[in-house]
Amino acid sequence: MEFLYTHETLKLEFPLVRPEEAKYVILGVPFDGTTSYKPGTRFGPTLIRQATLNLESYILDYDIDIAELPIADIGDIAIVAGDPRKTADRVRETIEELRRVNPDAIPILLGGEHSQTLGAVEALKPASYVVFDAHLDLRDSYEDNPYNHACVARRIAELGIREALFGIRSGTKEEVEFAKENGISWVHARDYDFDSFIELVKPLPEPVYLSIDIDAFDLSLVPSTGTPEAGGLRFWDVIEAVEWLVENKKVVGVDIMEVGGTELGNVTALTAAKLLFYIIGALAR
Amino acid sequence: MEFLYTHETLKLEFPLVRPEEAKYVILGVPFDGTTSYKPGTRFGPTLIRQATLNLESYILDYDIDIAELPIADIGDIAIVAGDPRKTADRVRETIEELRRVNPDAIPILLGGEHSQTLGAVEALKPASYVVFDAHLDLRDSYEDNPYNHACVARRIAELGIREALFGIRSGTKEEVEFAKENGISWVHARDYDFDSFIELVKPLPEPVYLSIDIDAFDLSLVPSTGTPEAGGLRFWDVIEAVEWLVENKKVVGVDIMEVGGTELGNVTALTAAKLLFYIIGALAR
Amino acid sequence: MEFLYTHETLKLEFPLVRPEEAKYVILGVPFDGTTSYKPGTRFGPTLIRQATLNLESYILDYDIDIAELPIADIGDIAIVAGDPRKTADRVRETIEELRRVNPDAIPILLGGEHSQTLGAVEALKPASYVVFDAHLDLRDSYEDNPYNHACVARRIAELGIREALFGIRSGTKEEVEFAKENGISWVHARDYDFDSFIELVKPLPEPVYLSIDIDAFDLSLVPSTGTPEAGGLRFWDVIEAVEWLVENKKVVGVDIMEVGGTELGNVTALTAAKLLFYIIGALAR
Amino acid sequence: MEFLYTHETLKLEFPLVRPEEAKYVILGVPFDGTTSYKPGTRFGPTLIRQATLNLESYILDYDIDIAELPIADIGDIAIVAGDPRKTADRVRETIEELRRVNPDAIPILLGGEHSQTLGAVEALKPASYVVFDAHLDLRDSYEDNPYNHACVARRIAELGIREALFGIRSGTKEEVEFAKENGISWVHARDYDFDSFIELVKPLPEPVYLSIDIDAFDLSLVPSTGTPEAGGLRFWDVIEAVEWLVENKKVVGVDIMEVGGTELGNVTALTAAKLLFYIIGALAR
Amino acid sequence: MEFLYTHETLKLEFPLVRPEEAKYVILGVPFDGTTSYKPGTRFGPTLIRQATLNLESYILDYDIDIAELPIADIGDIAIVAGDPRKTADRVRETIEELRRVNPDAIPILLGGEHSQTLGAVEALKPASYVVFDAHLDLRDSYEDNPYNHACVARRIAELGIREALFGIRSGTKEEVEFAKENGISWVHARDYDFDSFIELVKPLPEPVYLSIDIDAFDLSLVPSTGTPEAGGLRFWDVIEAVEWLVENKKVVGVDIMEVGGTELGNVTALTAAKLLFYIIGALAR
Amino acid sequence: MEFLYTHETLKLEFPLVRPEEAKYVILGVPFDGTTSYKPGTRFGPTLIRQATLNLESYILDYDIDIAELPIADIGDIAIVAGDPRKTADRVRETIEELRRVNPDAIPILLGGEHSQTLGAVEALKPASYVVFDAHLDLRDSYEDNPYNHACVARRIAELGIREALFGIRSGTKEEVEFAKENGISWVHARDYDFDSFIELVKPLPEPVYLSIDIDAFDLSLVPSTGTPEAGGLRFWDVIEAVEWLVENKKVVGVDIMEVGGTELGNVTALTAAKLLFYIIGALAR
Ligand SMILES: [Mn+2]
Ligand SMILES: [Mn+2]
Ligand SMILES: [Mn+2]
Ligand SMILES: [Mn+2]
Ligand SMILES: [Mn+2]
Ligand SMILES: [Mn+2]
Ligand SMILES: [Mn+2]
Ligand SMILES: [Mn+2]
Ligand SMILES: [Mn+2]
Ligand SMILES: [Mn+2]
Ligand SMILES: [Mn+2]
Ligand SMILES: [Mn+2]
Repeated sequence: MEFLYTHETLKLEFPLVRPEEAKYVILGVPFDGTTSYKPGTRFGPTLIRQATLNLESYILDYDIDIAELPIADIGDIAIVAGDPRKTADRVRETIEELRRVNPDAIPILLGGEHSQTLGAVEALKPASYVVFDAHLDLRDSYEDNPYNHACVARRIAELGIREALFGIRSGTKEEVEFAKENGISWVHARDYDFDSFIELVKPLPEPVYLSIDIDAFDLSLVPSTGTPEAGGLRFWDVIEAVEWLVENKKVVGVDIMEVGGTELGNVTALTAAKLLFYIIGALAR
Repeated sequence: MEFLYTHETLKLEFPLVRPEEAKYVILGVPFDGTTSYKPGTRFGPTLIRQATLNLESYILDYDIDIAELPIADIGDIAIVAGDPRKTADRVRETIEELRRVNPDAIPILLGGEHSQTLGAVEALKPASYVVFDAHLDLRDSYEDNPYNHACVARRIAELGIREALFGIRSGTKEEVEFAKENGISWVHARDYDFDSFIELVKPLPEPVYLSIDIDAFDLSLVPSTGTPEAGGLRFWDVIEAVEWLVENKKVVGVDIMEVGGTELGNVTALTAAKLLFYIIGALAR
Repeated sequence: MEFLYTHETLKLEFPLVRPEEAKYVILGVPFDGTTSYKPGTRFGPTLIRQATLNLESYILDYDIDIAELPIADIGDIAIVAGDPRKTADRVRETIEELRRVNPDAIPILLGGEHSQTLGAVEALKPASYVVFDAHLDLRDSYEDNPYNHACVARRIAELGIREALFGIRSGTKEEVEFAKENGISWVHARDYDFDSFIELVKPLPEPVYLSIDIDAFDLSLVPSTGTPEAGGLRFWDVIEAVEWLVENKKVVGVDIMEVGGTELGNVTALTAAKLLFYIIGALAR
Repeated sequence: MEFLYTHETLKLEFPLVRPEEAKYVILGVPFDGTTSYKPGTRFGPTLIRQATLNLESYILDYDIDIAELPIADIGDIAIVAGDPRKTADRVRETIEELRRVNPDAIPILLGGEHSQTLGAVEALKPASYVVFDAHLDLRDSYEDNPYNHACVARRIAELGIREALFGIRSGTKEEVEFAKENGISWVHARDYDFDSFIELVKPLPEPVYLSIDIDAFDLSLVPSTGTPEAGGLRFWDVIEAVEWLVENKKVVGVDIMEVGGTELGNVTALTAAKLLFYIIGALAR
Repeated sequence: MEFLYTHETLKLEFPLVRPEEAKYVILGVPFDGTTSYKPGTRFGPTLIRQATLNLESYILDYDIDIAELPIADIGDIAIVAGDPRKTADRVRETIEELRRVNPDAIPILLGGEHSQTLGAVEALKPASYVVFDAHLDLRDSYEDNPYNHACVARRIAELGIREALFGIRSGTKEEVEFAKENGISWVHARDYDFDSFIELVKPLPEPVYLSIDIDAFDLSLVPSTGTPEAGGLRFWDVIEAVEWLVENKKVVGVDIMEVGGTELGNVTALTAAKLLFYIIGALAR
Repeated sequence: MEFLYTHETLKLEFPLVRPEEAKYVILGVPFDGTTSYKPGTRFGPTLIRQATLNLESYILDYDIDIAELPIADIGDIAIVAGDPRKTADRVRETIEELRRVNPDAIPILLGGEHSQTLGAVEALKPASYVVFDAHLDLRDSYEDNPYNHACVARRIAELGIREALFGIRSGTKEEVEFAKENGISWVHARDYDFDSFIELVKPLPEPVYLSIDIDAFDLSLVPSTGTPEAGGLRFWDVIEAVEWLVENKKVVGVDIMEVGGTELGNVTALTAAKLLFYIIGALAR
């Protein structure tokens, strides 16, 4: 039964399609078990979706109305509290289910801890992993847990996937050495520009998975994330890179992770929501 | 298609039934066009639903698990911005639709401005209106609008419905006189006790509509409402009255209105969410 | 009429009269130089006045509309930053100015630190000082300053003014001994009831100055004050006492002090604003 | 001088003149009836004025002390709640009143919703309208209301006034087409630089009305506005343009709109307050 | 080396003794890995200690200055992130270390999740466990973890320790049945009074461990805890019970748990800090 | 006695040395008696130290782990409330004490009001004073106090110390004239670039004291400071200058002042904490 005036709450605001018919499939991962400093990324998916109510669905830059695109929103993963590996398994299985009925759909994760990216990458098996992040995330283990968010790029590298990291301004000596020994290239936020992005990403094999740890942005744009860092990227820095990437490389999966806070319409969520719309728009043009 | 690990976001957390099969049907009304002081009740329905994640579905006092009851959540009304009357029309029509397929279901509104109660009352046609509120809401018109939240009890009285008001601690001379002339009885928050409730409610004809303007509670419990007032009721005061009412009178509709704020898990939303669970539990026992 | 030390600021919302014609004269004292823990009482007068926008001017309990009473608002004292004594001198001189043109007006201070009450008391020369406060404020000196807010009741006692303190739940051994030696009676918040108030206040000589340090209330009602304390009074406790006092004793001055915070419509300011309206209403009936 | 629709409120901190003698006349418009996402612009005028307490009145860049300029503050418009058109009528009439006694004064509106700019433009009848905004505001109607804030540039264009828009990063296809068909030029925030401003503004006929929707700035500078958008302008971008404009074109009216929030000294209000001082300083040099 | 004017930061503010000489030993447990709803109890110990700066060390009610008592503060436990059992092991071992050098000292835990109480109980081996809590905490397992905070009373009961629970207003049917089958008595917050406390606690064997989950208090007093619940206890309810308990029973350990938030001086922390001082004072008199 | 699992709370997170052995000695100055607008810098030292928990101790840019450097943290100065001069005397004496036992250590102050820099400068007697600040701080007296934070650069200049100021965007005509007459050079935030820094600092005599009033940064990075100003510097602007300074000049003392707020992990504190780590790293490489 349907009512004349009611609408489903807290999905994206415009008409959605069924996952079988979608080109873009949104999936929330409200997990924050291993957040290092500021807790609260469990509310990330809800906050991002709610913040899209602030936005026009029409993207001026692309002359595209994403409300007219075939988008599905399959809700949130039921997390396994405190266990990033088991939760990431559920992410992986969910994306595998999706691919069985719709192999061409591009999953877009909204998180939630960066640790969950691993599940998506395991399901999608990209050849390359391009990530914006303030942190290298190349630790072997953190707080006794190899599936901590601080290890996700390491776990992905160990799968034989090529990596390029941008916006970096935090790491350990061990992570730097691991990167060097394993041919993982990265650009410090201080040195980041569009050319540095193209230079590193151009040689990467396809398909590509794109991960955006929201803390890649400057902390004035993303105060409500697990580990905000001064000296980060600006909004158009990332958009410009996303545009080049989706135009020049086959992208099979995307995520926007580490969004937190408790306040509806907080700056971090608004930044993530606009980024989400640009990503979908860029993929579609 | 259904996914193993996904669940719909931002509905009540336990298994819900279709409206045709429900005894209790939740409906959000995210309207805040005429809020007098603190804006933000537009986020009320989302905040209340999200706050239920904090609660056990089992009500200790009643030995009832409301997760096992037939509850539907039909989402939020698509509001007509700035127009309380047209939005209330949609509330009325939605409840009328519901009653055509399920005449016995009890609608439970989550608001949103108190002005929207009018739509529910028009659809349900109760003989009496029992309300907890800090304010008389008996103005003829407020800010040039007869459908302002400050007029809702007046509009309902004009339908010939008997009224009893509790927790009152704000009003105008005109409202007091209107109440006196029209046989509307009310109890000041300073004088409120359980006996005063029974005394006024016992003689009221059935069926009854129960409305709880969240500002009836003390402002320490509900800081995020449109017009919070010091000196209000405590949590168990209202629960005790609700229990008596649903045991002794036929109740055909209920609402919890004027919940606001922007922070997930704010005190006002938590108070409203627990009240919601007790109301459903009390109705069911 | 112009005062030497006041300046224009946000005023009460209803029609005001000139100080010469007023029975009640509001004066803000935005001083917070010696606040012990939470800073911010400098914004108190602005916050209280702004919070009155939330309230009806009609007091249900008294059938009085305070918007029809002769009230003046002479703005805020220009403070001497960091110097409670010099600022209190300006409070004293301003009230003396007022009394020269209107000897019967009752000044109502909105603060700002409790230290400023001294200036009002020096100008008004009451025989007794009745105060609601979580703290004894009977220190000889605090942080090397005898005019710190923690010393105000001591300074007033030294003027030969009789005192009664209510809602107390914090003090030092020296303050307790000073109270005992000087016949200053007080009631602990745990033991407070209406009878205890009447018992201590009845024998006090007139005229009386009434001071309400907002921290007398429970910290759930007044989180934004300099030194909030758990276990305080409820709203009606204080109203009931005020009503008895103004009916049974000649009151020459009143204040509501230690209101702080930075958020418009915060719970502390709303409590203070409603208290202000009740005090004016009670004085007028 | 008294105005029909204004009332006293918090004022700027330095000595003010009467409106008849002023060159710059400040007028608050605390209207937020049609805000799309974050409510609260009703507190904008109070917040901006209060935030000026944070600032020196001396503008380093211009060697001008604006405290020495002839500025009047005529308080806030008494709004018609929920009705942007009727409230804008009051804005128009108030400015017309002002112009009858002082035809050369430049009104400076502090808002409040952008919808209210229409009233000022109707009174001042500029030949051109220069606006900084994240949004095109060129809709024919929004939420059934042609006087919604999202339509203000459309209504103004329909008066035959030439327009140039800067900082744009949100709009609909219909708005873009309307702009194209009606010769309305605009610059996307991504493409904005000083040259782009001069190029579009230089050919515009005089006199000019300057409107600054505070959301033109990046959301890190203005989190407390109705619809904050990532990727906006920086502070000096706008100041530089204002300086060029007032030096090269006759400006007859200015506004700073869509300032919101509830916290005194919030970042949005501080940005707006400093902008206000620079605008007055630039006009005066 | 010692400096004339410096003091250690973020310990209790008054002179402390070495643990070997102390009667009361404070220990922070900043663990929040399994918090159900509102994250942030990791900051609890810091927030409580900082909030003591708001308080007099002299307890009016007892004529005792706790600054003169032999108190040690041994800092915070180094937690094992995400693992409540391993962290509780560290709590246990730390208290065992303490008891080897000072068998009579009473450890006072500041938390942090309620799960950590288990470590203290294992070290101290009391005969009875008296707890104030909104929740029964009698689940066998929660979110796949038997050491979740929702299971702590169950784990303790399984050690053969007698239990009495007060302030309860949340639980599951299974917990209620487990309580009944195992002779665990509890009092609902609605029914709680001093007599109910004495009745249940009087027959309990000694020594006793006292645990206070801060959510036992009403949510207006403790909004910043993991799972705040409306309808809780007032401040003096708990103090009165603590006084009776320490006077009538040998108490070997105490804790104040589930304090959260991020704001210095938040209401929850202030309530916990005052409770801490009363507990120490009551133990000492 | 030491415990296996405990660590001192609220010092920097890594192993510290005794002051006698340190090269870098941290000293908190929690003074905020004369803050002009937003109070709360009293919590600055606690907030900065706590925010370092968010950071890696390894500085990517320098390949230096500051956790391996000889750093001491001697806690906070016991302030004299309301008296910036007496508190600055204590700062001076403390640094003198330190220099007697360790003449080569570099003190690093964390504040607290800028007024306290004077004490450090008096103790260290540098030849030059390099400061980042939004304000000139060259007033002769402010609010009747020559030791107000707005006068600190004036007091230092009067000691015959050469000065260069960067990031300035607020001042009075008198301050500008004093600067001109006394050969004090400064760069407006609008005009600031790396070259302007080198040009002014290169000719300055050694040794140098470096002071960073956190309000030099843009208000989006430092909303929680006493007087935040739009149009400030970005993070890397200051880091780049610090790097040049410590490489090219002998620096004998450093401070980071005017950090405020009450929320753990606030953006201002996070910016200050990262700045602190870069300063130590730059000094060490
Ligand atoms: Mn990451
Ligand atoms: Mn990261
Ligand atoms: Mn109401
Ligand atoms: Mn109502
Ligand atoms: Mn006091
Ligand atoms: Mn007090
Ligand atoms: Mn806009
Ligand atoms: Mn606009
Ligand atoms: Mn609990
Ligand atoms: Mn518990
Ligand atoms: Mn400074
Ligand atoms: Mn400064």
